[in-house]
Amino acid sequence: MSPERGFPESEFAERTRRCQELMAERGLGAILVCTEPEVRYFTGFHTPFWQSPTRPWFTIVPAEGKPIAVIPGIGEASMAATWIDDVRTWSSPQPDDDGVTLLVDCLREVVGPDVASSNGVIGLPMGPETHVRMPLRDVDRLRACLGELVDVTDIISSLRMVKSEAEIAKHRHICGLVSNAFDELPNILSTGMTERQAFATFRGEILRQGADDVPYLVGATGHGGIDDIIRQPSDRTIGDGDLLIFDTGSTFDGYFSDFDRNFAFTTAEPDAIDAYRAVWEATEAGLATVRPGATTTEIFGAMNAVLKANGSLGNDVGRMGHGLGMQVTEWPSHTASDDTVITENMVLTLEPGLLWAPGRAMVHEENLVVRANGPDLLSRRAAPELPII
Amino acid sequence: MSPERGFPESEFAERTRRCQELMAERGLGAILVCTEPEVRYFTGFHTPFWQSPTRPWFTIVPAEGKPIAVIPGIGEASMAATWIDDVRTWSSPQPDDDGVTLLVDCLREVVGPDVASSNGVIGLPMGPETHVRMPLRDVDRLRACLGELVDVTDIISSLRMVKSEAEIAKHRHICGLVSNAFDELPNILSTGMTERQAFATFRGEILRQGADDVPYLVGATGHGGIDDIIRQPSDRTIGDGDLLIFDTGSTFDGYFSDFDRNFAFTTAEPDAIDAYRAVWEATEAGLATVRPGATTTEIFGAMNAVLKANGSLGNDVGRMGHGLGMQVTEWPSHTASDDTVITENMVLTLEPGLLWAPGRAMVHEENLVVRANGPDLLSRRAAPELPII
Repeated sequence: MSPERGFPESEFAERTRRCQELMAERGLGAILVCTEPEVRYFTGFHTPFWQSPTRPWFTIVPAEGKPIAVIPGIGEASMAATWIDDVRTWSSPQPDDDGVTLLVDCLREVVGPDVASSNGVIGLPMGPETHVRMPLRDVDRLRACLGELVDVTDIISSLRMVKSEAEIAKHRHICGLVSNAFDELPNILSTGMTERQAFATFRGEILRQGADDVPYLVGATGHGGIDDIIRQPSDRTIGDGDLLIFDTGSTFDGYFSDFDRNFAFTTAEPDAIDAYRAVWEATEAGLATVRPGATTTEIFGAMNAVLKANGSLGNDVGRMGHGLGMQVTEWPSHTASDDTVITENMVLTLEPGLLWAPGRAMVHEENLVVRANGPDLLSRRAAPELPII
Repeated sequence: MSPERGFPESEFAERTRRCQELMAERGLGAILVCTEPEVRYFTGFHTPFWQSPTRPWFTIVPAEGKPIAVIPGIGEASMAATWIDDVRTWSSPQPDDDGVTLLVDCLREVVGPDVASSNGVIGLPMGPETHVRMPLRDVDRLRACLGELVDVTDIISSLRMVKSEAEIAKHRHICGLVSNAFDELPNILSTGMTERQAFATFRGEILRQGADDVPYLVGATGHGGIDDIIRQPSDRTIGDGDLLIFDTGSTFDGYFSDFDRNFAFTTAEPDAIDAYRAVWEATEAGLATVRPGATTTEIFGAMNAVLKANGSLGNDVGRMGHGLGMQVTEWPSHTASDDTVITENMVLTLEPGLLWAPGRAMVHEENLVVRANGPDLLSRRAAPELPII
């Protein structure tokens, strides 16, 4: 059974309430957001239209009351269908003033007309994993009108890192569908196929299982080893003794899975079998560490210790897993210095990567939700030994 | 036959040469770009990994010589496989200094150590349809080190708006595949399906035809009319007398199609049939206007005149078509004031939209390449009368 689509209004009301609580602690009169996941988080506005770079879209979270949408006219009907009551539009594209005046006027209305002289009352995410999705020229205009803005990356990330049960249900559903698709791979892939055919076959299978979309699909094949795990497919033909990795971020109702699986065709070298086992064990060590109160740095350390004990030459991924949500990767990162405290209902990936020989990488990934007593797997656990097709 | 994947090195050398010619005219020592299509344009680096917001990626076009990539280590192998020789990496994520120092050092090396005191030698796209894909906090650091940056949106857009024959071949291929899929719709859609089933069926058909992906798919159904053309599917069941619009941006080798088609089920009201015909005629008027030397404003005017003569109540799209390329929409826009001069080998959409009654919109879209003697259609021309399934 698929979980229900969308969310009840109470979900958005609760997100807004938590945000306003954090805003009050810091004396903020408004938060401005302008990227797809940020706007969707507060409004429920969900469309692939964001792929068009032409028009900026804004949402303002005031100190009290519902968020306000300040958006191009083309989005009015869709935004009006969300829980948002106050939808202000302009005719876009309008390069000379693409929403800037309307946005400034709205912010002045929300925080008071003297905003430029009372620096520090408007928040904007300006830190890690964020960007401002509007022309830099217009960011400058905005800042000239609004005075100093406050970085609220920590507010937005602390909200989005902890998922509701409704969000977790969507994650669980898509992770289950992708697990099913991975389980089918031995039946639908074979030597003689090209990488491109294998990618198309896997994408088709994920959709057949019921995913809405497969926005993220990378992978590679290689004889005896794989050097690059974020590649797009080539016309290389898969042969005996090849390794294959697929890593996919697929979606259900706008929420991602993000995990990979590794396979060998016909035979595998002992070194590859050992590398697979080492990374599987590293994931076990990560799972044993995940619990409320642990840190991302401890999780990293637990996995890294296993990889080091297995002769890791390091890896260039820069982390061993991350948050998961409306984006294929979100805060936090499991690194040696991230030190984010894990809390209940975070949805995370564990992603240890081992460079077991020069140019030969093995990466495993699982998805989980953090519960009071530890990790609850969302992906079906990878086989402990390298599967051979 | 599919066109060849990727491009020969000469394609990137020519892009770089044209860019450097424009840079020389303006006395620029370097251009910095940091979004997916910009980096791909100069390097050929092609991966969906950009969906992860965690890490910034940079490419520098110097006044002479090949572009330089300044990227997270995870991309090194993929970037090294492109025509780029100089790939500089750092271990990312590293929130305290996520590439900023490495980037500043590289820019100083390229334009000279006194960059901060010689304002105006480094270009960055800061205008319409652009954004800077890195945390605003890091943009500020960068500007503090580099002095005043020059907006080069016009350089980048003038390059990207005019396509090579190799790019046009990719557009033609994907437009042909999507045309085939639209032609199949009467055979694979029927009343009694939900919108969600219809979307999944269409997505599957586009992939079956050979598209790499369907990143953009919107549409709607409605009895006697449609109020919102950028919607995601619902569980609404399609019935007799419904109208359906599908609009898709599908891809082949990283290049987009972007056109829509409208259908009625079983029967259609005379008003809907008239609206369809009016928008079809507006497209004809647009096609008759497209030629090198015409402007986007003239193209808009030609289509708008037909819509007005047919009782248009206006529309909220804000334009009647746009450029097409590595993104589903690119510069320019057909608006009343855009005034971009059309040149040979631009790939454009024509997208007249008619609000024929309150809450009832009809939008047509075609894709074309501009040739010396006028438009060469890439999409298979829509039927002149509303097709009934």
